[in-house]
Amino acid sequence: MNIILAPIAGIIALLFAFYLSNKISKADPGNERMREISSYIHEGAMAFLTREYKALSVFIIVVYIVLGFFINWLTAICFIFGALFSILAGFFGMQVATKANVRTANAARTGQNKALEIAFSGGAVMGMSVVGLGLLGVGLFYILFKDANIVTGFGLGASSIALFARVGGGIYTKAADVGADLVGKVEAGIPEDDPRNPAVIADNVGDNVGDVAGMGADLFESYVGSIISALTLGAVLFKDNNSGIIFPLILAAVGIIASIIGSMFVKGDENSNPQKALKNGTYVSSILVIIASGILSRMIFGDFRAFFAITAGLVVGVLIGQFTEMYTSADFNHVKKIAKQSETGPATTIISGLAVGMYSAVLPVVFIAIAMILAFFIMGGYGEAQNVLAGLYGISLAALGMLSTTGMTVAVDAYGPIADNAGGIAEMAELPKDVRKITDTLDSVGNTTAAIGKGFAIGSAALTALALFASYSQAVQLKAIDLLNPLTLVGLLVGGVLPYFFGALAMEAVGKAANHMIEEVRRQFKSIPGLLEGKAKPDYKTCVDISTAAALKEMVLPGVLAVVVPLLVGLLLGTEALGGLIAGSLVSGVLVAILMANAGGAWDNAKKYIETGEHGGKGSFAHKAAVVGDTVGDPFKDTAGPAMNILIKLMTIVSLVFAPLFLKYGGILLNLIK
Amino acid sequence: MNIILAPIAGIIALLFAFYLSNKISKADPGNERMREISSYIHEGAMAFLTREYKALSVFIIVVYIVLGFFINWLTAICFIFGALFSILAGFFGMQVATKANVRTANAARTGQNKALEIAFSGGAVMGMSVVGLGLLGVGLFYILFKDANIVTGFGLGASSIALFARVGGGIYTKAADVGADLVGKVEAGIPEDDPRNPAVIADNVGDNVGDVAGMGADLFESYVGSIISALTLGAVLFKDNNSGIIFPLILAAVGIIASIIGSMFVKGDENSNPQKALKNGTYVSSILVIIASGILSRMIFGDFRAFFAITAGLVVGVLIGQFTEMYTSADFNHVKKIAKQSETGPATTIISGLAVGMYSAVLPVVFIAIAMILAFFIMGGYGEAQNVLAGLYGISLAALGMLSTTGMTVAVDAYGPIADNAGGIAEMAELPKDVRKITDTLDSVGNTTAAIGKGFAIGSAALTALALFASYSQAVQLKAIDLLNPLTLVGLLVGGVLPYFFGALAMEAVGKAANHMIEEVRRQFKSIPGLLEGKAKPDYKTCVDISTAAALKEMVLPGVLAVVVPLLVGLLLGTEALGGLIAGSLVSGVLVAILMANAGGAWDNAKKYIETGEHGGKGSFAHKAAVVGDTVGDPFKDTAGPAMNILIKLMTIVSLVFAPLFLKYGGILLNLIK
Repeated sequence: MNIILAPIAGIIALLFAFYLSNKISKADPGNERMREISSYIHEGAMAFLTREYKALSVFIIVVYIVLGFFINWLTAICFIFGALFSILAGFFGMQVATKANVRTANAARTGQNKALEIAFSGGAVMGMSVVGLGLLGVGLFYILFKDANIVTGFGLGASSIALFARVGGGIYTKAADVGADLVGKVEAGIPEDDPRNPAVIADNVGDNVGDVAGMGADLFESYVGSIISALTLGAVLFKDNNSGIIFPLILAAVGIIASIIGSMFVKGDENSNPQKALKNGTYVSSILVIIASGILSRMIFGDFRAFFAITAGLVVGVLIGQFTEMYTSADFNHVKKIAKQSETGPATTIISGLAVGMYSAVLPVVFIAIAMILAFFIMGGYGEAQNVLAGLYGISLAALGMLSTTGMTVAVDAYGPIADNAGGIAEMAELPKDVRKITDTLDSVGNTTAAIGKGFAIGSAALTALALFASYSQAVQLKAIDLLNPLTLVGLLVGGVLPYFFGALAMEAVGKAANHMIEEVRRQFKSIPGLLEGKAKPDYKTCVDISTAAALKEMVLPGVLAVVVPLLVGLLLGTEALGGLIAGSLVSGVLVAILMANAGGAWDNAKKYIETGEHGGKGSFAHKAAVVGDTVGDPFKDTAGPAMNILIKLMTIVSLVFAPLFLKYGGILLNLIK
Repeated sequence: MNIILAPIAGIIALLFAFYLSNKISKADPGNERMREISSYIHEGAMAFLTREYKALSVFIIVVYIVLGFFINWLTAICFIFGALFSILAGFFGMQVATKANVRTANAARTGQNKALEIAFSGGAVMGMSVVGLGLLGVGLFYILFKDANIVTGFGLGASSIALFARVGGGIYTKAADVGADLVGKVEAGIPEDDPRNPAVIADNVGDNVGDVAGMGADLFESYVGSIISALTLGAVLFKDNNSGIIFPLILAAVGIIASIIGSMFVKGDENSNPQKALKNGTYVSSILVIIASGILSRMIFGDFRAFFAITAGLVVGVLIGQFTEMYTSADFNHVKKIAKQSETGPATTIISGLAVGMYSAVLPVVFIAIAMILAFFIMGGYGEAQNVLAGLYGISLAALGMLSTTGMTVAVDAYGPIADNAGGIAEMAELPKDVRKITDTLDSVGNTTAAIGKGFAIGSAALTALALFASYSQAVQLKAIDLLNPLTLVGLLVGGVLPYFFGALAMEAVGKAANHMIEEVRRQFKSIPGLLEGKAKPDYKTCVDISTAAALKEMVLPGVLAVVVPLLVGLLLGTEALGGLIAGSLVSGVLVAILMANAGGAWDNAKKYIETGEHGGKGSFAHKAAVVGDTVGDPFKDTAGPAMNILIKLMTIVSLVFAPLFLKYGGILLNLIK
């Protein structure tokens, strides 16, 4: 088999994305009012992306030069393309998502099925762009340079963009959300998504910026990272033939085709639950990948060990989604308990939500551990004949397995904000009630898929980081990262505390940005005559600008931190301490991420559950308490939590890319003492 | 120098405790009403301890038999005595603390200084009992058996009691507190510590059970653990002479004398801040230990390396106290920020408090890392000539240094609940306003010392666990605990998630117990005629029983978990995986503990700050939001957070004690696969 199939599959994905994009463009964008609102959202989103990418260009150029001088110029070029491709995927995905939202709203006039199709197609464009550009880039650069270590630069580029897209996007979306809610809903008493609210457009833009572009960049990073890890380890493991390279690239290509086929199964009846249609698509692609991995494993390696490693990762990915649903959906007891506890006020809402978040970390972590160890022992063997390198390769295959259907996962995930936006547009354009009912159904499914998507993003980040950690150890030629070496322990402790610092920064950033937004919305309500009566138009643009500026400003410190700390630790304390740092931030970051994502999701759904009339329904004492939980959960699940995924992956890939530097100069401080 | 000095110093400490106890007994317990209230508290506290220890006897006997059969009967005997001595210290300390409270209240009638003296003497009895019994036990058993490994049993006994005292005590105190506050203060609108509140006695008992006995047992464990770690490592390091044994034992003896001398400096003027007097005592003992450690280091080892290791630990202990104050005292910006955020409601109170808690973890962890690495390199050297074992011994000396003044630390810490109780008694007995003002002053100082004490308890737990981790690695003869071994990574991940599970269990337990209490208090208000008018007496005993029963029931699962998980991991996956487990739970546990303790402390003080009239003062919107923060913080700082200290130490010492078992049978699951 030829590895040229990988970039070809990437191109197929992109062609499919263009096809879907065209289909969406041809759909009717509805009446003038709808088109107007949609254009506000579209322009706001594009304005944010443009400004974000402009700001990033400085960062990219600096890193490019550093890489070129200290590592090599080929890696630096790969870095540029990794960043560019991630930007492209985000741009293209957002472009289409902000077109699909209004068309989904309009299609809902003719029925649920048509609306589902457009919303999902919009998500699929993002999904296909992510995997298409990801595999195209990695495949092409490997074919060009024939050196997996150089391709790591592509991963670093992807990671850098992911950091800013996730952190910046997270701050943007929550600042707008909190501002719109607190002043609009609570103070002025107007409904959600009301066009009189000056922050309403920023809020809708935020859904795209955070949940489409941010999530896409996050999974682009995981996807690329898992392939790169398999390539670097496979290259060392199979020195004589390139089967260690062929297998991951071809498997990723198969994953793309499986995702395209799966997406064709996302079709529902007019009255069936859209969730079922989305699940069908996911299952079809997963099964296809499992079958194909069996065939490929037998063909390329002559046995089924790689198949088991791939399957372990894939199954755990699906399981983590299920666990997430268990802890965050109102169909299960945990969320109901939080709702019940809201009867005794906000304090008990918070305590029980945090407890649910903490419990919810147990199963995912244990299952990630199981997948890792299975993959390791199946590929590496045990006892005397154990091949550690093969075992580590197994771990990277498990990560690859989990991420093989990323095209489908991102499609389902990006569907959510499109449906959410469609609902907002339907409300603002005052479409009939039955239309709004359809968009509500689509939206509520989107909430569940969003929670599952978050769980998957964390799980895949953890497994990718573990795989990259293995690659790192090979790259710096460490035979062991010994916890009895106090430098490793120092790394472990410092790495462990980093997610706390990072998380605190992110939460404070949201608070600050939201305060600006609150003041601006209040100002407009006061100073624009006739605004609340619907006689005058609010100034949407200023609110969009506030969110944009805040997001750009507040993402700088966390961003710099994530790059500089591993460099400092590696250079000053050496490669083993850096290994400890990675491990510490991995463990601590994954835990904090799960806690925050699931507590946030559970609070959100507990509030919605009460709004269905339980425990007194909307406006009751319990509801007010649940709203407090939901507000605490917002920066948890949409800003600080997802930022952890990026932190742990970025620190690992920085360590991997700069491995040659650490090999030469690592441990300066220790050498000074000597 | 003869190591007999160690048990002698232990006996001196106990004699000093008796002397103080007598002095307190002779003081006037006040009028009949005061004596009556005090006797309720005393009886409630003693009833809890008796029932707790009775329940524990089953656990102790089971572990005794297991130890005897699988390890050896001498270790089992040491275990029994470790448990008994911890129980004794708790019993004696509580006996005196519940006498000192009423006498403090009465002394406040004659002036602040006399009241401070009695309250502090009460705390000092606990402090002296802890270090006296601790050093007596360890010293005596080492002299008897001449084998540091056998003495580890004493540490396991101390740890077992600490677990139940901390977790059980934490549940007890918060169930009573929440019950008393929610129904009494919020629903019935009667003031705090009002004798009409049926839960008021349980609340006051809880202060003793949680903050005196629980904290005492926690530090008894750390104290004993740090000495044992130094003994086990010292015995291997210095095979030819026993200087590695002599140094830690004599240093601990010196620490006791320094604490006794320091306690004599706790004297204030009538109008000076009692905080200053308490700090004087701490500084005097610390300086004495530093000087003595220099002399001892030179005498025993011929150089000053041990002195530096001891000093590193001691200084970091003091620094952690300062950091804790920085993040939890209203004199600093963090707490003021939370108070300000309360103006926008409970959600922002919670978010900003959590952010403060997360930030507050950074400095302590970094400084623990610095102390560890300094101690390691100073004792162990670096480069070619490095002696790893000596380095590990250095880490244990740093832990010992931090804990050398435990007598003083516990005294200051146990002073808090006595002053708090004195205030409660003054209120219930309706003593004049100026008396209440003095007890208020003493109480507010107690809040600060409690926060600092919590920080110290966490820091010392971390350093002790690190030292015991080093001892463990020697005991199971591991040359490395390699993070590239996936079993170690599995251990690390599972260990990391354990504190989350543990914390969630603890918080839920408080919730359940508090609910029972709330129902009972409501029932009494309804069914006892004339209760709210002050014409009838509430049934205090039933409330005390509810807290007691809940605490005993809910502590079982966490307790069993902390013992069984390391045993299972060691037996099934082997010693290296268990090493990973310990490291993972250490990092994650310390972080969660600091977050919870400091967020809780900061919320508490933000509320109190608002009550001084800021941001609208008592009853304002901001105040209500701050109360929510305080309520969330209660199980954080008094139940779940402190439980982490125990979890990480207990798991480590279980691993250490059962090392011979793991050496023989460890890794059953892996052997099966082979």
